Amino acid sequence: MKTRVAIVGAGPSGLLLGHLLTQAGVDCVVVERQSRDYVLGRIRAGVLETVTTELMRKLGIDARMNAEGLIEEGFNLATDDRLIRIDITALTGRHVMVYGQTELTRDLMDAAPDRGLTVIFEAKDVALHDLESDTPSLTYVRDGETQRIQADFIAGCDGFHGPSRKAIPASAVREYEREYPFGWLGILADVPPCHDELIYANGARGFALASMRSSTRSRYYIQVPLTDRVENWTEDRLWDELEMRFDPLSQHGVTRGPALEMSIAPLRSYVFETMRHGRLFLAGDSAHIVPPTGAKGLNLAASDVAYLSDALIAHFRHGDDSALDGYQARALARIWKAQRFSWYLTKLMHSFPEDGAFEHRMQVAELDYVAGSKSMQTVIAENYVGLPL
Amino acid sequence: MKTRVAIVGAGPSGLLLGHLLTQAGVDCVVVERQSRDYVLGRIRAGVLETVTTELMRKLGIDARMNAEGLIEEGFNLATDDRLIRIDITALTGRHVMVYGQTELTRDLMDAAPDRGLTVIFEAKDVALHDLESDTPSLTYVRDGETQRIQADFIAGCDGFHGPSRKAIPASAVREYEREYPFGWLGILADVPPCHDELIYANGARGFALASMRSSTRSRYYIQVPLTDRVENWTEDRLWDELEMRFDPLSQHGVTRGPALEMSIAPLRSYVFETMRHGRLFLAGDSAHIVPPTGAKGLNLAASDVAYLSDALIAHFRHGDDSALDGYQARALARIWKAQRFSWYLTKLMHSFPEDGAFEHRMQVAELDYVAGSKSMQTVIAENYVGLPL
Repeated sequence: MKTRVAIVGAGPSGLLLGHLLTQAGVDCVVVERQSRDYVLGRIRAGVLETVTTELMRKLGIDARMNAEGLIEEGFNLATDDRLIRIDITALTGRHVMVYGQTELTRDLMDAAPDRGLTVIFEAKDVALHDLESDTPSLTYVRDGETQRIQADFIAGCDGFHGPSRKAIPASAVREYEREYPFGWLGILADVPPCHDELIYANGARGFALASMRSSTRSRYYIQVPLTDRVENWTEDRLWDELEMRFDPLSQHGVTRGPALEMSIAPLRSYVFETMRHGRLFLAGDSAHIVPPTGAKGLNLAASDVAYLSDALIAHFRHGDDSALDGYQARALARIWKAQRFSWYLTKLMHSFPEDGAFEHRMQVAELDYVAGSKSMQTVIAENYVGLPL
Repeated sequence: MKTRVAIVGAGPSGLLLGHLLTQAGVDCVVVERQSRDYVLGRIRAGVLETVTTELMRKLGIDARMNAEGLIEEGFNLATDDRLIRIDITALTGRHVMVYGQTELTRDLMDAAPDRGLTVIFEAKDVALHDLESDTPSLTYVRDGETQRIQADFIAGCDGFHGPSRKAIPASAVREYEREYPFGWLGILADVPPCHDELIYANGARGFALASMRSSTRSRYYIQVPLTDRVENWTEDRLWDELEMRFDPLSQHGVTRGPALEMSIAPLRSYVFETMRHGRLFLAGDSAHIVPPTGAKGLNLAASDVAYLSDALIAHFRHGDDSALDGYQARALARIWKAQRFSWYLTKLMHSFPEDGAFEHRMQVAELDYVAGSKSMQTVIAENYVGLPL
């Protein structure tokens, strides 16, 4: 098979890129290792910046998002007994949208057939070839047979564990990484949220987050030691903990319900520098991971894709490679700032076992300062809503 | 001797407090361990917030400060090759004043005799007594004789090493402390500054600061390892380093001159909680130390004194003790925020040996974000110029 752009990965980055190229008349194919159902079963982020909603609008795949998404004009930072509301809209004139990444992925998948975007699921053993030549290709195995896609460019949208990043020789790259000494124990349940807006809390018992995917589906997290296991927790014990944390702070109180999903995720900051190797371009989690604090992961993938789709379209329409050549610098400038914010908010809102009493008081002082400073609230709001492209 | 308020220490906190009480007709005495010349020989900070200049104006001891002080409407954060100007006045409507702490202390000392403020120098072996009674006192030895001052209150303005803090039983306090893994090697010289406004730089060689005490006196610092010794440096070697750092960034370039002073100072964040024990009140460095980054030390002492003088005057004039009872909470709220800013700016602008590549990139990303965000510049400016009382 031949195509202009072979896209590895049918998560939101790959599907967004595929749709944007298809809309612009640039032939492309998306190849995904997993099944459609597996991809749609992954529980991920749920707060969309304007950069992401605008891409969905540009594609005209925004009807369900507009109908079901919750417009959020603020969110909250909290201590054990104080809620500090960050009035995003008053401070920045903008807002974010609560709409599950799973739903966005489903909308993009559902729209693919009608728009002529080919998505090949269950493509095993994806391998990238001849990236430094003018004729790169990828191979995969499906139904026992090896297939090859010849392309002008390959887009690596295959996440942290995919083959694209690994296809770049180590000598050409630099990695930046920080791991955090805790994880997030999360629960998803079909119960109304305890509060109309997200609450990030840092109290005597560490971090906790009350969030939602819709007006009937809640997503809660608490900080746990890295050594903890989900088997150590019952749903009741987790709900007890969440009630203790959020009943004093929230509008409606915590409503319990059976877990749709319960798991522990580690937190990591990671940047892979380079985002280009020959004719391979990386976008999204294949090139960078942010801790979930601040919900930047999906939105960074969207800004990568916005830059990369513009650059590829300029190449094919106008023979102009300047945006392709500038892709990495443009993307990284935004990535590092989003990394900074995610790291800042993670450090502000968690208990770090290695911190002493002074560092803990710095968190308290910072939250106290945030509560009283409109400038500091604006800094947080403008990062939360997303820095400009 | 009997007085209303016995003040320990004739640094700026003690002298400011003494003058404010004297101006309000509250009898007081200042007791200082060192000689007048020794106190005036100490080289300290040089950037005054409005809180400090306003106290000098209120006292009417502002003629020389107004004539010789430099109004600074901005300062700079820098990398090796980029200057990010923080336009304090445009962002906050305010400014700071460059005027050496030594000069301010001299003005306060010179004004004391005419105003009837007694300052007893070379008072050795100061000791505090009966702090929890209604009749506290202090004793000292002068010319071989022990003297006693009976007072209603004692104000501990005697800095980090003075006897006041140590007179409070350990069971009544909590200490918060952070030491930093580097010191500042400083040089003072009668040469014009390299730049009209301060430059805080963080580059490949770590932190450096170009500052001034007047239009003809410069004060430079560079970060050095804690193990370094001033004997390891010649003036020429330090000037070489400063030229390398500031010639590419500054308006006028570095002018060399003989050192009036050259020394290495450690950096420390420290808060002593409690600021009151019985009839003893602490103010300034006796209760807290900030790293010099951001020049908050003297200005925090001034805000402590502003609160404490108001509270003591309310007690003696109106028999109202509410401000005395609220002194610690009021002072600490501002102290912790200033600690936060000093710690933030220290962390942003120095190389930390324990930091990895990711943390270094967080500094770069933060400076890049500051350069592009008016909100973040406002946050830095409003802290630099001083949070409201």
